[in-house]
Amino acid sequence: MTVEVAASVHPSEPAVPIARRIVAEGLGTAFLLMAVVGSGVMAERLSGGNLALALLANTIATGAALVVLISIFGPISGAHFNPAVTLFFALRREIQPATATFYVIVQIAAAIAGVAIAHAMFGMALAEVSTKLRDGPAQALSEFVATFGLLVTIAGSVRFSPALTPALVGLYITAAYWFTASTSFANPAVTIARSLTNSFAGIAPSSAPAFIGAQIAAALAGYLMLGWLFEGRATPSTSTHSTSL
Amino acid sequence: MTVEVAASVHPSEPAVPIARRIVAEGLGTAFLLMAVVGSGVMAERLSGGNLALALLANTIATGAALVVLISIFGPISGAHFNPAVTLFFALRREIQPATATFYVIVQIAAAIAGVAIAHAMFGMALAEVSTKLRDGPAQALSEFVATFGLLVTIAGSVRFSPALTPALVGLYITAAYWFTASTSFANPAVTIARSLTNSFAGIAPSSAPAFIGAQIAAALAGYLMLGWLFEGRATPSTSTHSTSL
Amino acid sequence: MTVEVAASVHPSEPAVPIARRIVAEGLGTAFLLMAVVGSGVMAERLSGGNLALALLANTIATGAALVVLISIFGPISGAHFNPAVTLFFALRREIQPATATFYVIVQIAAAIAGVAIAHAMFGMALAEVSTKLRDGPAQALSEFVATFGLLVTIAGSVRFSPALTPALVGLYITAAYWFTASTSFANPAVTIARSLTNSFAGIAPSSAPAFIGAQIAAALAGYLMLGWLFEGRATPSTSTHSTSL
Amino acid sequence: MTVEVAASVHPSEPAVPIARRIVAEGLGTAFLLMAVVGSGVMAERLSGGNLALALLANTIATGAALVVLISIFGPISGAHFNPAVTLFFALRREIQPATATFYVIVQIAAAIAGVAIAHAMFGMALAEVSTKLRDGPAQALSEFVATFGLLVTIAGSVRFSPALTPALVGLYITAAYWFTASTSFANPAVTIARSLTNSFAGIAPSSAPAFIGAQIAAALAGYLMLGWLFEGRATPSTSTHSTSL
Repeated sequence: MTVEVAASVHPSEPAVPIARRIVAEGLGTAFLLMAVVGSGVMAERLSGGNLALALLANTIATGAALVVLISIFGPISGAHFNPAVTLFFALRREIQPATATFYVIVQIAAAIAGVAIAHAMFGMALAEVSTKLRDGPAQALSEFVATFGLLVTIAGSVRFSPALTPALVGLYITAAYWFTASTSFANPAVTIARSLTNSFAGIAPSSAPAFIGAQIAAALAGYLMLGWLFEGRATPSTSTHSTSL
Repeated sequence: MTVEVAASVHPSEPAVPIARRIVAEGLGTAFLLMAVVGSGVMAERLSGGNLALALLANTIATGAALVVLISIFGPISGAHFNPAVTLFFALRREIQPATATFYVIVQIAAAIAGVAIAHAMFGMALAEVSTKLRDGPAQALSEFVATFGLLVTIAGSVRFSPALTPALVGLYITAAYWFTASTSFANPAVTIARSLTNSFAGIAPSSAPAFIGAQIAAALAGYLMLGWLFEGRATPSTSTHSTSL
Repeated sequence: MTVEVAASVHPSEPAVPIARRIVAEGLGTAFLLMAVVGSGVMAERLSGGNLALALLANTIATGAALVVLISIFGPISGAHFNPAVTLFFALRREIQPATATFYVIVQIAAAIAGVAIAHAMFGMALAEVSTKLRDGPAQALSEFVATFGLLVTIAGSVRFSPALTPALVGLYITAAYWFTASTSFANPAVTIARSLTNSFAGIAPSSAPAFIGAQIAAALAGYLMLGWLFEGRATPSTSTHSTSL
Repeated sequence: MTVEVAASVHPSEPAVPIARRIVAEGLGTAFLLMAVVGSGVMAERLSGGNLALALLANTIATGAALVVLISIFGPISGAHFNPAVTLFFALRREIQPATATFYVIVQIAAAIAGVAIAHAMFGMALAEVSTKLRDGPAQALSEFVATFGLLVTIAGSVRFSPALTPALVGLYITAAYWFTASTSFANPAVTIARSLTNSFAGIAPSSAPAFIGAQIAAALAGYLMLGWLFEGRATPSTSTHSTSL
């Protein structure tokens, strides 16, 4: 239907032009960051200092947004929204290195744009520098566990019930916001973008590298272990490189 | 099965008489406003002044109600409940202008009736004038983003997973109540009706025009952009003008 | 598979012996009351006097329980758990009067048993008399709206998406706990049983008759209106007398 | 596809090597305990002493995690994660005694490991001794009811809608955390592991035996009663020994 070149499409999938994939990946990542940061600002303003209530609202908004965004953008771009996920699929050779590089650049740029739009909606400066330290080995371990669990969820869903991937990823993050000490960033693009908000969801730039390192380590660990655990392939009618149907 | 004239039905859909469509659209919109305003009153009365808790209850009730109402009325009327959605489908030529006009009139009338019934259930005057100012460019931007995101959700769902449209719209609004500074009205009929309640969910009449303007602008933006992003059609067995299966 | 006589089974359904139907209806109703009353007691004890938080917990537990109970008992008994629902189906001639009478007796007895078990789990006397007045026309109107909305939900689900009936009923009650001033009892058996607990979920016996009257009136109104609105039949492969697939 | 010996696979299921089943069962149980204990620690730290809010967060994280873990590990191991569930299936002869023994050992070991990882993520000692007494007949009754209800949910789901088992189990536990006085441990491995955390989710070792006894009694009661209630078999294309599709 178009002469544009589709990049890195798995043979069983209909070709989607790269321009639409990039727009889907960017729009989805921007909305994800709006959901994370915007709901954090709203929750902080309304919760009267009760951090559990603020995190609960932040959790529900983020989980709900993820289900929606993966459902509607998954069939176009795979709905990674996350360099760690893109790296995982690149290691599994389900996305080409060149496309993966495009994806990561778009994810980071769109994540930053999403924070800026969230700030604009709440009448704040478009970018701030976070002062919220999230340091130490327990935080790094949390990010490793959070990201590894995310990849277990994605790999298992894609293998056994691709149509449920959006719901399962949304539910996983809903749980992981609470069961990890870091509130489960689990995403390098999200980590970078959240260093630019000095609100509830922020992370001090000095804390970001350890988070990103742990996330990348988890992508490698996931690649090494999950191929065996979830061996076999999704049925041909479902995408194997996509995080959603 | 009936000699009544069905208006504006997509060729792939069974004809539904216009009277049933109008009743479905009206009953659904009335219940939606009961859910929004009624749960806001209940939440305000019980929450002891904690606004985050009140908004959380308001969010859960609204999101849950939307899933139900779109599921059961979607097959009859398309379950728009929203002039911005009807405008979006009219621009896409998936509903005829005359039917769209009927829909918008019914949506506004039913929304006002829904507020009145909610007030009656809580022993309040049937109509009030809200004094809750929601002014300024950040609020208008919020409504633009909220409505645009709603249309992205609807267009993407109808394209890729029509059976999930009710759930995805409910989840989107659940998230958007928190990530936009305006708590995501995203609906001109809802905006008009909520100007008639001086409770948690109200909006001062003077603040309404900017909300409605932003909502209409988002419908136009959605029309211009989303045809390309979600190009292609839902399978013939599913409605393309309906917001639900 | 059995020589027991199955009562009132729609021709398109496999016969289920009446004994299993009665046990399913009773076990489901008992668990429903445990969920309603038990979660109310727990919420009241833990919430430190914040009624919104208590109702939120009560809502989530009740909604979740309903989805489970209708899913697993629906294929056996129809999972009414509610004399107003049984009356609605009896008026529609989808259950025989004799069976309907059995159902109502079992529902009331099992609801009372459920309250007793909930009390035992929390170390309370098995039965109490509630002193919680829920009087006045606004409360009665609330029960009429709550029950009518429940029947709209059931009739619409059974007609258009029977497999989703459990989820839609659970979501409807989740919303209706908040948008009606009575917190949506919507069930005569539940009303009777909740008069026997002097906890969060209780209702004074003197307030019960108006609730039950409004619930029965809504069943009649639902019967008169919804046949037209949801005219047509579910596909033969799905039950039409069951509230779930 | 492999020469490893698959143990105790129902004839209608593809063989899965025992090593993968054990890893799935262990990884799932470890993540489940991380979710339960980790979210309990987070909730306790953030909730400012409001126990209802803490339990609500703990509930949402646990329920969401269960849906994910049963969905992705169910097709490999059956996703029991629970000696009471394994005993129930062993009594029904849907898992061989030797495999069941392996499962129980792995469940207990993995549950303890999950608590240790959760503690590490929150910077706590890997194991503690809980001082939280949960004694008395009301608590034991609660555990009997909680476990019996869990088995009703599993047996009913496997019989009538196997694809929904993960969601229904997650929703059941969501409700049961609130409607039982014990917050529904319903799992001997979870009970043992939670005796090793002196946080929100802990249980004093002296209280554990009565919990475990009640859970085992419920497994026996479930075996005796539910075969009759849910007589008949799931369709051949779905597993009958698995708690999920």
